[in-house]
Amino acid sequence: MQSREVPVTAYQAGEGFLSQKQKLVRQVVLPYQYDILNDQLPGVEKSHALENLRLAARKMAGEEVPPDAFYGMVFQDSDVAKWLEAAAYALAAGPDPELEARMEEVIDLLEQGQRPDGYLDSYFTVKAPGKEWTNLQEAHELYCAGHLMEAACAYYEATGKDRFLKIMEKNGDCIYRHFMEACPRGFSGHPEIELALMRLYRATGNEKYKELCAHFIDVRGQEPNYFVEEQKTRGWNVWGNDSLDTDYTQSTKPVREQEDAVGHAVRAVYLYTGMADLAKESGDESLKAACKTLWDSITKRRMYVTGGIGSTVIGEAFTVDYDLPNATVYAETCASIGLIFFARRMLELEPRGEYGDVMERALYNTVLAGMALDGRRFFYVNPLEVVPGISGEAATQRHDLPQRPQWYICACCPPNVARLLTSIGSYAYTVGENTLFAHLYLEGTVDTGLGWSLSCETGYPHQGEVRYTYHGLEQNTTLALRIPGWSRKTALTVNGEPADLATLTKDGYAYLTRTFREGDRITLTLDMAPQWVTASAKVPAATGCAAVQRGPLVYCAEGVDNSDDVLGLSFRRDGALKAEAFDPALLGGVTPITAQGWRQKDAGGLYAYGLPQREETEVRLIPYYAWANRGLTQMRVWLPVG
Amino acid sequence: MQSREVPVTAYQAGEGFLSQKQKLVRQVVLPYQYDILNDQLPGVEKSHALENLRLAARKMAGEEVPPDAFYGMVFQDSDVAKWLEAAAYALAAGPDPELEARMEEVIDLLEQGQRPDGYLDSYFTVKAPGKEWTNLQEAHELYCAGHLMEAACAYYEATGKDRFLKIMEKNGDCIYRHFMEACPRGFSGHPEIELALMRLYRATGNEKYKELCAHFIDVRGQEPNYFVEEQKTRGWNVWGNDSLDTDYTQSTKPVREQEDAVGHAVRAVYLYTGMADLAKESGDESLKAACKTLWDSITKRRMYVTGGIGSTVIGEAFTVDYDLPNATVYAETCASIGLIFFARRMLELEPRGEYGDVMERALYNTVLAGMALDGRRFFYVNPLEVVPGISGEAATQRHDLPQRPQWYICACCPPNVARLLTSIGSYAYTVGENTLFAHLYLEGTVDTGLGWSLSCETGYPHQGEVRYTYHGLEQNTTLALRIPGWSRKTALTVNGEPADLATLTKDGYAYLTRTFREGDRITLTLDMAPQWVTASAKVPAATGCAAVQRGPLVYCAEGVDNSDDVLGLSFRRDGALKAEAFDPALLGGVTPITAQGWRQKDAGGLYAYGLPQREETEVRLIPYYAWANRGLTQMRVWLPVG
Repeated sequence: MQSREVPVTAYQAGEGFLSQKQKLVRQVVLPYQYDILNDQLPGVEKSHALENLRLAARKMAGEEVPPDAFYGMVFQDSDVAKWLEAAAYALAAGPDPELEARMEEVIDLLEQGQRPDGYLDSYFTVKAPGKEWTNLQEAHELYCAGHLMEAACAYYEATGKDRFLKIMEKNGDCIYRHFMEACPRGFSGHPEIELALMRLYRATGNEKYKELCAHFIDVRGQEPNYFVEEQKTRGWNVWGNDSLDTDYTQSTKPVREQEDAVGHAVRAVYLYTGMADLAKESGDESLKAACKTLWDSITKRRMYVTGGIGSTVIGEAFTVDYDLPNATVYAETCASIGLIFFARRMLELEPRGEYGDVMERALYNTVLAGMALDGRRFFYVNPLEVVPGISGEAATQRHDLPQRPQWYICACCPPNVARLLTSIGSYAYTVGENTLFAHLYLEGTVDTGLGWSLSCETGYPHQGEVRYTYHGLEQNTTLALRIPGWSRKTALTVNGEPADLATLTKDGYAYLTRTFREGDRITLTLDMAPQWVTASAKVPAATGCAAVQRGPLVYCAEGVDNSDDVLGLSFRRDGALKAEAFDPALLGGVTPITAQGWRQKDAGGLYAYGLPQREETEVRLIPYYAWANRGLTQMRVWLPVG
Repeated sequence: MQSREVPVTAYQAGEGFLSQKQKLVRQVVLPYQYDILNDQLPGVEKSHALENLRLAARKMAGEEVPPDAFYGMVFQDSDVAKWLEAAAYALAAGPDPELEARMEEVIDLLEQGQRPDGYLDSYFTVKAPGKEWTNLQEAHELYCAGHLMEAACAYYEATGKDRFLKIMEKNGDCIYRHFMEACPRGFSGHPEIELALMRLYRATGNEKYKELCAHFIDVRGQEPNYFVEEQKTRGWNVWGNDSLDTDYTQSTKPVREQEDAVGHAVRAVYLYTGMADLAKESGDESLKAACKTLWDSITKRRMYVTGGIGSTVIGEAFTVDYDLPNATVYAETCASIGLIFFARRMLELEPRGEYGDVMERALYNTVLAGMALDGRRFFYVNPLEVVPGISGEAATQRHDLPQRPQWYICACCPPNVARLLTSIGSYAYTVGENTLFAHLYLEGTVDTGLGWSLSCETGYPHQGEVRYTYHGLEQNTTLALRIPGWSRKTALTVNGEPADLATLTKDGYAYLTRTFREGDRITLTLDMAPQWVTASAKVPAATGCAAVQRGPLVYCAEGVDNSDDVLGLSFRRDGALKAEAFDPALLGGVTPITAQGWRQKDAGGLYAYGLPQREETEVRLIPYYAWANRGLTQMRVWLPVG
């Protein structure tokens, strides 16, 4: 059964774990990021993103603006776009006149910076006028446009105000004309426009955006490669990326012929998201099959246990099957966010537990780890092993920072976390034919649009009981609950009566179809016993090791909890895992896990003969999402089992 | 006690393991490499090295030679130099008129290609005339000159013929004039000239070469950095290496202030070799102290268990302490050869077992692994883990080939292995005051120059008994035998009478001082029981793992012996290691080791909950030096212990 996202306005947060994260974004992250985008926070990487928009507006007003007044990446506009999108979702949670006024000012700038034909990109307007659309491989114009379209749709959905939407429709029309007529072989080196056009199509009902999305997807990877041809003649570079590295831009083959997830991981999952979205809207089975192939490539062979993807800094990219190094890893925060986008589109195409499981894995581990608990520092790269002195220092690990910086020259990740968290309701629920699908468990209330709503109370992910209450008229309808693959013993009750999960469950979803009445209580109880996770022996970086998971949370050992020496630790094979009491004072509230283990004694010297001496010890573990919040310290997700 | 190398002519090979390797080099490797250098072997990387010399000779004879007729690396001459040096040592082993004639032809070319002022470098003579000495950072002129000096010294020592030596003296004088007068701040981006000048000094007795060596060592790393200044003005690049990366060229600080082994690993150990050589000849204690500091940096914190050094392909370089990844490793063959050079100079400065142990470790593991058993294929990079499908394929492992190629565009390693093996007698023995030091155990006879000689019979490294016989007049003298750190139970007898090793041994050498008589038999019996090796828990890449060593040989598991699945293997902690019978038919004759172990059962899928199921198995191990001689297969040195 296909389904569709619930509008962001249909979900009202509660007081639970993710709701607290949303609140943090609204209260701390959005103002903090605005200050950075507006260059008002000294001591962090300079953004200049809003100033670029002001420059473009002044230039369009006829002022003289020197090209080198532009500062930042070619895609600097997209930081503002993602912030706007996140802010729009925040407005959907409740009125915030100050925030809305601030957003209107930014929208003013966008409106003023837009050219009469609809073109809108501060880099090209200020810095490189005349070069528009000539470097699709590198220049991110369609990427920035896509992010602005998403923001406009979000703002329209949250507020009902259509000024921003009209700006982006005008921009979409400009893009449509150029790519359907003047440049029919062109497409974007960094996908994003595809999924954005599908959102714009749904927000406006205008079929041309869907048509343009399909065009971009179909033209990709046709021979001769557009980027190779373009690079021969364009005469300018952004970075000088080699167009012959067509894997990097997912353009080696037409998308329906692609069998492996390759190249820049964020680009890949953004593309696949657009493909899956289009496949659902168009019913294109070959495109759906391609999505499933690429999904399997990622999740069955190229994904970290934390839901991170992209094994190497070289091209911020996928490498090959089972190559999942823990220390030299990339696992960009944005890539896991994109994987969540892709997962939700796959869920909309077909409800299968594996999609929801991966979405949850990426969210609760890599994505949440991407932001400090205080909302003011961010990881771009999310390692599974950190050793101070090596991480961030060795030539191969310069990118693997052991601590979160405040901001980045390339600041794609921080506002991406913000927009995902403020819109999390749209990932938690989708609506199919007379059916509400619950993919994630989070407190709050969702209006299904089916004439009923569902409220949820839960201490998830720290506790396993999820209590739903039905609100609405008596009617026959279906509530489909994801039964996570990690829950070994799961119970479901309706008004206290046990339901038979085995008969209700298909492909990872329990379909509870019945005549619901106001106040009906559905309780799902998930198994929160901590458990070992083992990787396939085909993964060289995890052989002989185990990780620990409790609920959806992957755990890690930090030096600060383990005598400053995680490298010397191993798990006892015959030892037990024990969930300690929830500690509200630790790391914002976590359930630590202790494991019986060993500590290797230092034999002195680099190498010693004989097996290492070891002593019994307790291994203390915390959720991975909370690591690196207590200073510089060792960290590992995978520990040897001995 | 200081000591000095024995001349290459003083050692006559026997029939043992390394003697067989020397024979292979003489009979197979040298003709094979000559054919490649002379572009007579189709289907391998083109060398053109000899043709470059012919072009230079023709140009010096007044012919017009187009600059782009030169082909190859800027240091292509050095491949010929190393081949000449290896061939010279081969001549020392016994007459070979055909080889000698071939060498004379090459020397003809060098003589003809030398300029009247002594300058000699085919790259600059043919391709870049007028740019001599303007890019010391990159252009390897002094490096090539150093290799030719070494070859000339070797040819002179082996044959007594001094034509080649005279050519290189003339070249040395040219260099002396330039760098002591015109360019007194300059030194070589790639060290080698320093150690070569010390050899030229000893071969000729001319103090100016030692003086020039000292100058090059002292001027290195002075402020302002010579390479940084040079790059500002020189106006041309070889590769465009960043001169600001002064670690790469070991020029960040004066050598006496350097505390860590940094940068390009081959450059580093070549430099340290020259430093140690000069320190011995000059008695410079501050230089000796610097050498010890850098030795410790390498061998106590930055060396693989195989004696490989250089953890990353990025700059072919050292990284940071304890960063010793097994799969993305560099461990260039040349770097371990350079480590052997350095070790011998340290031994000459001061006989300490650790120097000999490291020399032996590097030789019997990484260096021997650098060449296929048939002498026709070579590794440049020596990984400690290979997984077909990942090694050589993943973006981070393109350099880690799972099989030896026949030749390389940058072919520094193959002739380097050849020259080391043909001169191995000079590493096995050094002579101090009335004392012969035996650092390596190998069959054959050495003339000590003290009025006596020593013959040796042994099945080493496969067997542990080393039988020496004294030849010469009755006299009081000392035989100092290295007692390897890996030998747990060592016995020494003289004419069948046990000697008390504990009292004889100091700093890893047993000093047997007595009145020796013709025919005296000294028998050293080393402990060849296979044993575990464990790395410090500070090495992230080896935690929870063990390696296996027998004698000096580090072992590895290959897929071909282990059901094509090494990744699934672990050692039983409570299991035994068993040396099988020597198998003369296996890999040229090896002693396989079997260990009790486990094999992880495939749980299906990338990740599974629970600890992995496993079954008992036998882990079969072969010496690392013999790996990759039976087709594409997995390989690991470190295996988990479970």
